[in-house]
Amino acid sequence: MTGWLLALDFGGTKLSAGLLPAGWNDAPVDSPPEWHDLRREFSMGASDYRSDIDIILRLSHEMLKGQIPAAIGVSFGGPVDADRGVVRLSHHVPGWENIPLQNLLENEFDAPVRIDNDANAAALGEQRFGAGRGFEHLLYITISTGVGGGWILNRLIWRGADSMAGEIGHTVVDPQGPLCLCGKRGCVERLASGPYMAADARQFLRKNPSGGKVLRELIGDDLDAITAAVLSRAAAAGDDLSQRLLDRSASAIGVGIGNAANLVNPQLFILGGGVTKAGEAYWQRIRSSARETALPEVNFDILPTMTGDDAPLWGAIALAQGCI
Amino acid sequence: MTGWLLALDFGGTKLSAGLLPAGWNDAPVDSPPEWHDLRREFSMGASDYRSDIDIILRLSHEMLKGQIPAAIGVSFGGPVDADRGVVRLSHHVPGWENIPLQNLLENEFDAPVRIDNDANAAALGEQRFGAGRGFEHLLYITISTGVGGGWILNRLIWRGADSMAGEIGHTVVDPQGPLCLCGKRGCVERLASGPYMAADARQFLRKNPSGGKVLRELIGDDLDAITAAVLSRAAAAGDDLSQRLLDRSASAIGVGIGNAANLVNPQLFILGGGVTKAGEAYWQRIRSSARETALPEVNFDILPTMTGDDAPLWGAIALAQGCI
Repeated sequence: MTGWLLALDFGGTKLSAGLLPAGWNDAPVDSPPEWHDLRREFSMGASDYRSDIDIILRLSHEMLKGQIPAAIGVSFGGPVDADRGVVRLSHHVPGWENIPLQNLLENEFDAPVRIDNDANAAALGEQRFGAGRGFEHLLYITISTGVGGGWILNRLIWRGADSMAGEIGHTVVDPQGPLCLCGKRGCVERLASGPYMAADARQFLRKNPSGGKVLRELIGDDLDAITAAVLSRAAAAGDDLSQRLLDRSASAIGVGIGNAANLVNPQLFILGGGVTKAGEAYWQRIRSSARETALPEVNFDILPTMTGDDAPLWGAIALAQGCI
Repeated sequence: MTGWLLALDFGGTKLSAGLLPAGWNDAPVDSPPEWHDLRREFSMGASDYRSDIDIILRLSHEMLKGQIPAAIGVSFGGPVDADRGVVRLSHHVPGWENIPLQNLLENEFDAPVRIDNDANAAALGEQRFGAGRGFEHLLYITISTGVGGGWILNRLIWRGADSMAGEIGHTVVDPQGPLCLCGKRGCVERLASGPYMAADARQFLRKNPSGGKVLRELIGDDLDAITAAVLSRAAAAGDDLSQRLLDRSASAIGVGIGNAANLVNPQLFILGGGVTKAGEAYWQRIRSSARETALPEVNFDILPTMTGDDAPLWGAIALAQGCI
């Protein structure tokens, strides 16, 4: 196998391109694999989708130095029609609407291209090169600005009939819970994602001028400084409010995982995304809540991502490998 | 193709055996298919698993009249290890524990045998010969004394890692809901199944001597006479309590379906079991609740079973067809 595998990741805020030799099959067992070359740049998000593509093309050509890649895999942060190779939409960057990205890249690089959404790509990346090696059936879940998921069943991406499978973030775990932008109450994303936790913390602090003392000290009373990371620090320092919000987030994820285990019975759940860095108490709550929700006969593990934020980019390598 | 396909169904209360010519492929499009020969008997449940097997063997030999079947498919009402052909457990009949039913039948009839649990068999039966024809991905749900489910993905039964997939009845849709025997609160089965609805109705009538007037008239004040069918009749006659219980049941099923749609994105949900005969209001509530729970981009239909209570037996035919 000669030439290069090129992996591209169109994230919401970041654009990445990674390069590996086409014959590469060298992922270590207990640590993340390493890139031959890797470049990143921030997305020009606010402007137009063309500028994102231009940045990615420039990074790629810099790395390839005039060579034609053997194959290209692409992870895109939004809904994708993987069969047709078309980006349906970006929730972050204007203009991404029915863009034939696969075709566009095939013409630019004269190489076969495969694309998928970031959750599916991350699931594949972890299954091939990360915490999911040796497992056939898993759900990758990212808990970050949103809560998304991607299925691997029988070692292949499971996309569902409309390429919509994996939307664990919009499964309802508490019909009496708070209202989500999606119009439902108590879906996992409403209870578990970073921005919603931060918004709930702000609202509580506004209504309770004497509450959340530890959290207030951390942010110097600047409510806009509250993020999931800040809540984690405050919780670790003993802040009641932050502990409650993180506990509710972990419980929601746990119920979502337990329900998914009963319904689909995969071997493994892999969790990634910023919120999962909230510490051991957060993980323990997820595990206990998932275990309580699943039937006793239903077995599964819950592990952290091994390739971290690069899971989609490693998935893009696996997509590229599928082309050659 | 010569000889016979033999289908066997070990239900909780009923044993059935159905016969078709091995070359049969004649299911009509808009109506249930028909058996060449079909025999049923009540299970001797209370006694021992051997008596169930004896009854099934007698029925089968009566139908086969000394001929060797081309293949045998078996639906069993309880957890099955389909790969090894072993019944793990019956919740109804004592003694069914790690019984190598496939082996036992292969020796008895000198023919290849395939077995699966009733929910998986019903899903397959509906996909091949019922409401699911032409669909590749579906979830069959039975709403009866319990709530169970079976997946068809890519036209094949999806069993999951521990053969436990499809347990939509024990997904949680209301963590503040009433306690289920499984130990959880607000799982679909606790809210939607017939016996739980009847138990909730009894409890309400005991606590509220003046409530549920229409329902009381229907049962002549004999609380033990309450069943899901009675609740349906009372609801149709305008009984408030019965309408509330059925509405709660339908909502729980709908949320379960919507969650499953977001998570796995099948094309179709097929609903069977006694409770689904509760009438048009019940179905409308299921459909609206499912639609509200699923994301707008997630498409699916919800249809009643076409082969009815025989769905598992038709699935057994499909299992038998898979052997030849």
